Amino acid sequence: MSEIRADDLGPWLSPDDLDFVRRKVPMVYVDVVPVRLDDDGLVASVGVLLRVSRDGGISRALVSGRVLYHESVRDALARHLEKDLGPMALPRLPLSPQPFTVAEYFPTPGTGFHDPRQHAVSLAYLVPLDGDAAPQQDALELAWLSPAEAVDPRIQAEMVSGHAALVTTALAHTGRLP
Amino acid sequence: MSEIRADDLGPWLSPDDLDFVRRKVPMVYVDVVPVRLDDDGLVASVGVLLRVSRDGGISRALVSGRVLYHESVRDALARHLEKDLGPMALPRLPLSPQPFTVAEYFPTPGTGFHDPRQHAVSLAYLVPLDGDAAPQQDALELAWLSPAEAVDPRIQAEMVSGHAALVTTALAHTGRLP
Amino acid sequence: MSEIRADDLGPWLSPDDLDFVRRKVPMVYVDVVPVRLDDDGLVASVGVLLRVSRDGGISRALVSGRVLYHESVRDALARHLEKDLGPMALPRLPLSPQPFTVAEYFPTPGTGFHDPRQHAVSLAYLVPLDGDAAPQQDALELAWLSPAEAVDPRIQAEMVSGHAALVTTALAHTGRLP
Amino acid sequence: MSEIRADDLGPWLSPDDLDFVRRKVPMVYVDVVPVRLDDDGLVASVGVLLRVSRDGGISRALVSGRVLYHESVRDALARHLEKDLGPMALPRLPLSPQPFTVAEYFPTPGTGFHDPRQHAVSLAYLVPLDGDAAPQQDALELAWLSPAEAVDPRIQAEMVSGHAALVTTALAHTGRLP
Repeated sequence: MSEIRADDLGPWLSPDDLDFVRRKVPMVYVDVVPVRLDDDGLVASVGVLLRVSRDGGISRALVSGRVLYHESVRDALARHLEKDLGPMALPRLPLSPQPFTVAEYFPTPGTGFHDPRQHAVSLAYLVPLDGDAAPQQDALELAWLSPAEAVDPRIQAEMVSGHAALVTTALAHTGRLP
Repeated sequence: MSEIRADDLGPWLSPDDLDFVRRKVPMVYVDVVPVRLDDDGLVASVGVLLRVSRDGGISRALVSGRVLYHESVRDALARHLEKDLGPMALPRLPLSPQPFTVAEYFPTPGTGFHDPRQHAVSLAYLVPLDGDAAPQQDALELAWLSPAEAVDPRIQAEMVSGHAALVTTALAHTGRLP
Repeated sequence: MSEIRADDLGPWLSPDDLDFVRRKVPMVYVDVVPVRLDDDGLVASVGVLLRVSRDGGISRALVSGRVLYHESVRDALARHLEKDLGPMALPRLPLSPQPFTVAEYFPTPGTGFHDPRQHAVSLAYLVPLDGDAAPQQDALELAWLSPAEAVDPRIQAEMVSGHAALVTTALAHTGRLP
Repeated sequence: MSEIRADDLGPWLSPDDLDFVRRKVPMVYVDVVPVRLDDDGLVASVGVLLRVSRDGGISRALVSGRVLYHESVRDALARHLEKDLGPMALPRLPLSPQPFTVAEYFPTPGTGFHDPRQHAVSLAYLVPLDGDAAPQQDALELAWLSPAEAVDPRIQAEMVSGHAALVTTALAHTGRLP
């Protein structure tokens, strides 16, 4: 799950307030597996961001972020895709509110996926892009991985907690496991 | 969506804190469509609670409630089912974390469903019961409706915001629209 | 389910052979709910064909047809969409092979949906169109219905067996029940 | 996909007729991933059959078989589960007709999965067993694999065409990828 950045907070939630809220209730998140399609409309590649994590290491991550108060899940998807992939990515937002899976991130390691900052319940969607994505802000690079690369154990080992399973689940859902 | 009751808060979140949090971030909820199956394993009836709403009226509602901090979605489903339907309902919790739909409730009327208390993002699951359900606490009655009754416009008009659409969607998902 | 037409048979299956096969095994079909999206990418309208049925009456039907020997489900979707809606409809074929539901049509009335010609098992998909659809061949007209019209009982009563439930299920799946 | 056996044909379809039909139209199949649940209702293990294939080798396969003329998909699931796992397996048939995926098997190698006998379109379901399964007829053994074993590349390499991907997809669908 990506780091929360200043522009994600909104004027109505100070960092202190966000810290408080995060210790009280689970946060609603979206995780996005962005894909490019081939001429037949099948998944050709999966977009994965390279990020500098808070401890200075490099890790691979999906587009991900919080749903804000009074924001719809669709609007949150559009906002995080534009924030991470730029305004020319032209995502096809999902027709159905049903996510392909739900990922649960807990602040204590052990059960489910791990996010030291918070307890998050994340709705995961597959989103084809019609345009050109360009990594923004704190993302170093956007790598387009073939289905075989995306499920390669060495590449999956570089992903942040939970995102490897989301990529495999998304490819399984599309019938495109290599 | 059901009213929040004292036992739902947990020791770590006072009513004031909950009020504060509810104005800051969307709440994670679960909505459950409880069903009884016939001998062939098909949906025979849908369980709907009769509740006294805060304005003193009577309305029909599904089993519904908040996911607590550090609680898994499955544990929240089990807790709310036991709280509303008693310890002998013997629910079959879902095998997959994928909900059949996601319902969004906003505090301002107009878009999506309405919940004056909060913005809630609710994961909706269909849950068969193997045992005997008995309404608990503030529920007056549990009615078992046939699929035809459950989509009857007069009965659906008595349901709280969003729950009529959830019942129809659940029956459509099972291929049991009358 | 649409009538089988001569161009649907292929050179390898004479009408006699098709009659024989249809009395021996279930046929693999696809049913398509074609939709147009609004600027936000949500379902704005559902495309329903007006057809002359074999008994001379008029009925409403979805795009539908048989999957041929050695043809993939995706190719069958593309072929039937082009056959019924023309080459400029520009359908977005589904990313996942998972249908939103499966409809079963039996030659004997009573259980499930009815198709006097055959036993068919039909995979149902929701397909957004980016282009302009024009009814072809034996379809008289293509009507674009709003979600409210598409679930209106009077309009649904004009649909061939099973297609009313498919339209309602498709709209429920998209979270767009009126 | 399992071999067709004599008891699968029914009185109305001779071996010659079945051979003829199989060269004319795709066959409707079901593939089943049988699972045992732990006390929390989560997938504990996946049931995989050990079979002698027609060339005398040994391979691992899921419960699988043809849907007969005039037979519902649910009845076909029940029949194949009883035929392969015995009458005491007590399967929980799916509530929804929606399969977790659709597998396509073609008689010519190259695209999709391969079945030299036929073109088959198979609806894949996850089915928990409440009872005791015992392999029947031509199955040598039923192995219960943990999720980690079931996705192990060496074990998956022993599975018949397509079934390894179905097992991974089923586990992904349940959120139980190891």
